[in-house]
Amino acid sequence: MSEIKDQATEELLELRTSIDNMDAALIHVLAERFRLTKKVGKLKAEHDLPPSDKAREQSQVERLRHLASQADLDPEFAEKLFSFIVKEVIRHHEQFRENTV
Amino acid sequence: MSEIKDQATEELLELRTSIDNMDAALIHVLAERFRLTKKVGKLKAEHDLPPSDKAREQSQVERLRHLASQADLDPEFAEKLFSFIVKEVIRHHEQFRENTV
Repeated sequence: MSEIKDQATEELLELRTSIDNMDAALIHVLAERFRLTKKVGKLKAEHDLPPSDKAREQSQVERLRHLASQADLDPEFAEKLFSFIVKEVIRHHEQFRENTV
Repeated sequence: MSEIKDQATEELLELRTSIDNMDAALIHVLAERFRLTKKVGKLKAEHDLPPSDKAREQSQVERLRHLASQADLDPEFAEKLFSFIVKEVIRHHEQFRENTV
C-alpha cells in the first residue's frame, strides 16, 4: 500500500513538473501577445484607426472556439479566457491613450 | 497620407497574424495543461490524496509572478489569470468526483 502511495506521489510530482512547464509557456506566450497588442494600440492611436473592431473580435472568438474544440478544450472556457485577456488589452490601450493625450 | 494609412493597415494585418498565432499557442498549451490536471485529479481521487494543496498553489503563484515580471507581463494580471484557470481545474475535479462517486 505504502509503495503504491509512493508511486502515486512520484507520478504527481512528474505531472506537476509538466504543469509548471506549461505555465511558463503560457506566461511567455501571453507576454509576447501583449507586446503585439501594445504595438497595435500604438499604431491605431498614431493613425487614428478605430480602437475596437467588433468584426475582428467576433472572428477571433469563432476561431478560438473552433481551435479549442479540436484540442478538446471547453470552447466556453476558451471564450471566457479570451474576454479576460481582451479586457486587459483594452486597459493597456486606455493607459496608452491617457499617457499620450 | 493614403499611402501611410495603407502601410499602417498592412502593419496591423501583420501584427494580427502574429496575435492569432499566439492565441493558437495559448489554446494548445491550455488544452495540454488541462489534460495534465485531469490526470492529477484522477490520481488524487484514486489514492485519496487531498484535492487541494494550498502550499503548492502559493508556490505556483509566487513562481508565476516572478516569471511574469521577468517577461515584462503585469504580475497582478498573471496571478488573476492563474486563479481563473485554477477555478476551471477545480470545476473539472468536482465533475470527475461526481461522475465517479
